[in-house]
Amino acid sequence: ARPAVTPVAVVLPAGGSGERLGGATPKQFCAVQGRPLVSYTVQAMERISWISDIIVVVSPEKIETMKSIIEKYGHKRVTIVKGGITRHRSIFNGLKVFTEDEFSNHLLRKPEVVIIHDAVRPFVEEDILSKVVVAAKEHGAAGAIRPLVSTVIASAADGCLDHSLERAKYRASEMPQAFLFDIIYEAYQQCTDYDLDYGTECLHLALKYCKTNAKLVEGTADLWKVTYKRDLYAAESIIKDNLSQQVCVITDVKEAAAQVGFLLQESLKSQTKIEAISVSLSKNNSHLQNVISGQCYNFVCVNDKKRAIQETQQVVDMLEKSNIPLLYPVVLISVHLDISENISFSIGMEELTRIKKFAREAKNENILVYGLLIQYK
Amino acid sequence: ARPAVTPVAVVLPAGGSGERLGGATPKQFCAVQGRPLVSYTVQAMERISWISDIIVVVSPEKIETMKSIIEKYGHKRVTIVKGGITRHRSIFNGLKVFTEDEFSNHLLRKPEVVIIHDAVRPFVEEDILSKVVVAAKEHGAAGAIRPLVSTVIASAADGCLDHSLERAKYRASEMPQAFLFDIIYEAYQQCTDYDLDYGTECLHLALKYCKTNAKLVEGTADLWKVTYKRDLYAAESIIKDNLSQQVCVITDVKEAAAQVGFLLQESLKSQTKIEAISVSLSKNNSHLQNVISGQCYNFVCVNDKKRAIQETQQVVDMLEKSNIPLLYPVVLISVHLDISENISFSIGMEELTRIKKFAREAKNENILVYGLLIQYK
Repeated sequence: ARPAVTPVAVVLPAGGSGERLGGATPKQFCAVQGRPLVSYTVQAMERISWISDIIVVVSPEKIETMKSIIEKYGHKRVTIVKGGITRHRSIFNGLKVFTEDEFSNHLLRKPEVVIIHDAVRPFVEEDILSKVVVAAKEHGAAGAIRPLVSTVIASAADGCLDHSLERAKYRASEMPQAFLFDIIYEAYQQCTDYDLDYGTECLHLALKYCKTNAKLVEGTADLWKVTYKRDLYAAESIIKDNLSQQVCVITDVKEAAAQVGFLLQESLKSQTKIEAISVSLSKNNSHLQNVISGQCYNFVCVNDKKRAIQETQQVVDMLEKSNIPLLYPVVLISVHLDISENISFSIGMEELTRIKKFAREAKNENILVYGLLIQYK
Repeated sequence: ARPAVTPVAVVLPAGGSGERLGGATPKQFCAVQGRPLVSYTVQAMERISWISDIIVVVSPEKIETMKSIIEKYGHKRVTIVKGGITRHRSIFNGLKVFTEDEFSNHLLRKPEVVIIHDAVRPFVEEDILSKVVVAAKEHGAAGAIRPLVSTVIASAADGCLDHSLERAKYRASEMPQAFLFDIIYEAYQQCTDYDLDYGTECLHLALKYCKTNAKLVEGTADLWKVTYKRDLYAAESIIKDNLSQQVCVITDVKEAAAQVGFLLQESLKSQTKIEAISVSLSKNNSHLQNVISGQCYNFVCVNDKKRAIQETQQVVDMLEKSNIPLLYPVVLISVHLDISENISFSIGMEELTRIKKFAREAKNENILVYGLLIQYK
């Protein structure tokens, strides 16, 4: 649902150094399925039509990296801003693109509501974004919260337990948060250097400097933040899971291929969403176009051994024309159906070389081609 | 380091229903690499020589499941105890096996210090266990803590922000925790039904009922708790990562096989810990035995095509005699070296059937055999 405010902008602080990850690369630039994490988060914002501008704030040495990410993955509506030395200073810089013209080529249109989100929370859904925007419009500020996973305790000076907090009374403050632009901007203008250097919580600034008690909105579990190496593993698995939700089987209309395609569909349909298409050789097919643009990332092309590479090449061409392989790797299994009577599994060196060359070229376009030879009687 | 107290026991509450995971199976019984999570945690405790008893507390309907897990994975020193309806009631039941003989066939020897840990924290290291035990011996109670990942906030009755806590002053209370047995047992005996039904924090009980301020010990990031589905993904990846740390290449002493093994070692040694062994046909080899019992889970057997299955079978036999494949799946790549002059990659149906049958049998023993045919000139 589109919140009844316009325009809405997003500031994504992506300037952190990621020291908790224990690696040299800050986590927002770590590759997940070959693509930097920040690109997934930008995409999550980009697909929401009512967000007009996405401000990504990065440390000075990452500006070129971020530019190339935007170019490579075809991101739109993104403005890159140079970050400060702390989180709050970076967010403040992000907000200034709407008020000071030194931060961008042109002054961006000041939004009524601004969302602040983390570059390392890629799985944010439209629903929670909409909820915090609506709540911010009403209350001036709003933020997503989650139940605490662990008990929170205070320690005494001697390193011993002072007291533990009653878990039910407290919540973890997460992202996204949203603010009336004028409120959060005012709060950043008012706040002290100490706040800018040591604070981390935007809701706190709105409360302290603008007397705005943020509305708290219960978020779902997928708002989590990629903090440790294990979180990168989890992000990778979730993305893989999402990508494997749908398979498209493409066969020649004639002969054994269509039959194998049908059998494959029958045996897979209980386990995944499967789409089967029989395409006449060399014809454009709008149904197949729809499947591709509907973000299907898994294809099985079943063809007679003699025509298999040629047919697979056509699917690769269609995929390359879409920008689907830019965002995620596409898996394409090229099944070479051998319907001759010869029962030894054999493939000539020449054909093998052709397939390998073909797969290598497709891989450059982020399409992973696997060959499979099936003896079919 | 062995803490200078004896004996030490562990209570692992494993009775939770896992509602946060959104699945029917409680997370401690979810399979990670084919094996229930709780088995990894039991193993983490079991390998520590100075822990005398491991008490696993499970809900009544999971007792048979837990018994079969202990049998299947060969766990030792484990006593299963029937849990209560809340976490604290389950832990209390776990402690009673040392004081009341109705909870076990025989009264277990009361430990000086008891560790309480979660079944869903499988990556606990000896170092932190030792630290909390030593600190508990001195202070009466001790618990692992971690920095907060998110700001903690208190909400007002209207669902708006009341105040946020200064992140640096608070910590997340994690597991393991350790207590002088008499202190925590006394605390459980004293505490109210309200505590038993709604409380979750053992350190709090020790403070409230025994005036014991627990020593707080900074833990490492791998103390995290498997809470959500994404955590299962992360656990799976971490375990896979650990398993792929070492590869053992086994070749025949003679001919091309040894040469291929040598080349493989050369090309892999920059990426992983690799061990290469040439074994005389049919001889027992103590070096290979040592590698297997040193928890290597990846084997490459390179042999002439004619003898490959027979040689691989011997390695499978050795693995089955160890209990290594009980704990984790073992990957064994059986390389069939074809040194004939024929350049087509072909394999007869009969040989293929043999390999498939062999792999299927090995899989029942948790050994995953992959066949690879290499043309070598």
